[in-house]
Amino acid sequence: MSLHRRARDLFAELQEAISSRLEEIDGVASFKEDSWQHVSPHDPDSTGGGRTRTIERGRIFEKGGVNLAEVGGRLTERLAARLEVEAQRFEATGISLVIHPLSPMVPTVHMNLRHLQLEGGRSWFGGGADLTPYYLHEEDAVHFHRVWKEICEAHAPGSYARYKKACDDYFRVKHRGEARGIGGIFFDYLEDDPEGTLGFVERVGRGFLEAYVPIVERRAGERWWDHERNWQLVRRGRYVEFNLVHDRGTLFGLETGGRTESILMSLPPLVRWDYDRKPAAGSREADLVAVLREPRDWV
Amino acid sequence: MSLHRRARDLFAELQEAISSRLEEIDGVASFKEDSWQHVSPHDPDSTGGGRTRTIERGRIFEKGGVNLAEVGGRLTERLAARLEVEAQRFEATGISLVIHPLSPMVPTVHMNLRHLQLEGGRSWFGGGADLTPYYLHEEDAVHFHRVWKEICEAHAPGSYARYKKACDDYFRVKHRGEARGIGGIFFDYLEDDPEGTLGFVERVGRGFLEAYVPIVERRAGERWWDHERNWQLVRRGRYVEFNLVHDRGTLFGLETGGRTESILMSLPPLVRWDYDRKPAAGSREADLVAVLREPRDWV
Repeated sequence: MSLHRRARDLFAELQEAISSRLEEIDGVASFKEDSWQHVSPHDPDSTGGGRTRTIERGRIFEKGGVNLAEVGGRLTERLAARLEVEAQRFEATGISLVIHPLSPMVPTVHMNLRHLQLEGGRSWFGGGADLTPYYLHEEDAVHFHRVWKEICEAHAPGSYARYKKACDDYFRVKHRGEARGIGGIFFDYLEDDPEGTLGFVERVGRGFLEAYVPIVERRAGERWWDHERNWQLVRRGRYVEFNLVHDRGTLFGLETGGRTESILMSLPPLVRWDYDRKPAAGSREADLVAVLREPRDWV
Repeated sequence: MSLHRRARDLFAELQEAISSRLEEIDGVASFKEDSWQHVSPHDPDSTGGGRTRTIERGRIFEKGGVNLAEVGGRLTERLAARLEVEAQRFEATGISLVIHPLSPMVPTVHMNLRHLQLEGGRSWFGGGADLTPYYLHEEDAVHFHRVWKEICEAHAPGSYARYKKACDDYFRVKHRGEARGIGGIFFDYLEDDPEGTLGFVERVGRGFLEAYVPIVERRAGERWWDHERNWQLVRRGRYVEFNLVHDRGTLFGLETGGRTESILMSLPPLVRWDYDRKPAAGSREADLVAVLREPRDWV
């Protein structure tokens, strides 16, 4: 079976494993699945389809999506130039998930894993996972990073530091001078050793529940108050700003005529924008912002 | 007094007149003013300052801003290329307003008027006004467009049709296949007859209250229910999507290091994103979407 096909099957298996486990944790809401076929209006030769699984109004998860996609078409000139190849047909497959919990004590999480196969034979893996807390719990940040560090270092010593920095650099809300969250790992254009890289991507995918679930279990029972919920809604605004202004994947998807509802499932369910809202000095909200301004080494 | 200075004084006068009248209508909340000076991190020779007036948590206006700005610096290569001039120093001044009412029956409104003066002597006016209802009231749309048509046609016969079409074309949420609202007028790069154009821009600015206030007065007393408020929050999501993904002014401001809080005061106070939310066939919500898909001639 081709590497691309094996990547696709892995992503399908991860979608099932992750959505089942999250549903079990929530205990109230369940994932609904939409199977879709989509042709980009910009590329009549495009093929596209996927399964979008979303959960809404849960006990723990206010909104989330775990999406599987398989799309094909011709590389745009811009993407061909970035890959330093001729424009040609490609096939891409990936899993993308974003979970927005109801409680401001439980962080939002994102993971994406993808494989891009060119007709000419070359192929690349990319992906990563990052955490966006509304209140900083150091032990959560340390735990999240520790899981990724172990997986990265087992694959290639030194890779955690590189992927951690790439994550901090990428998920930056430049116009705010802040990171989107406390980071994680981010990698792209991994071309060498496809077999080994598929194994690494598999361990990242399987590591997701280990990285995130203990944090959910630790925080979901904590009490929270209106002003904390309010702060969460304000911070979710920054999440929207990053995804709509800076995120290459989101903008590429919207520009090239991807399926809008699957792309924008990443947006939070409820969001506030107050004018010039600043946390009080010395508050827990100010502590979070300080960490977002200056990314920290967690492990 | 230079044309640029006179434009600036006009915008200051409009800011005062419009914010006072809106405050009077609201009757509860008042505008707070922030005077600011700002230097772009990308252009150490930049000068910038303004007065941002915002209203929040009013009886009628949930959030709104009426901003005055005066900035200067060097044209970026991209902007110089668009204007077909050499890169050089510029001064720009403008008024920009966005009002988000609390009631889903009262439409959101936006107006912007601006003047760009190059060191080399050339200068341009631009601007426009547009309306974003959550429920369609045809008489409101007709009234809004009639005010602009009268002002445009008195200035230059045939200009209303051009500016109306430019508005429909510009305020398009492309990835949704929808207009942001029911339009209005939009004009840019008006260079000929600066005296006459300043007069036109003045009449547009003074026309704002005539275009918007009767609609507020007609709708503010109407009862509304939770499902209508919910629909308003979902539609506000489209407003955010337009402003952050497509609006040239917003993206230019954020990229060039403008004052983030003044630029993003345009974002609504509270917003929802549900997955794949579609109005029921035959509903009033579906009527609105039909009009947004196919812009209509209102007068």
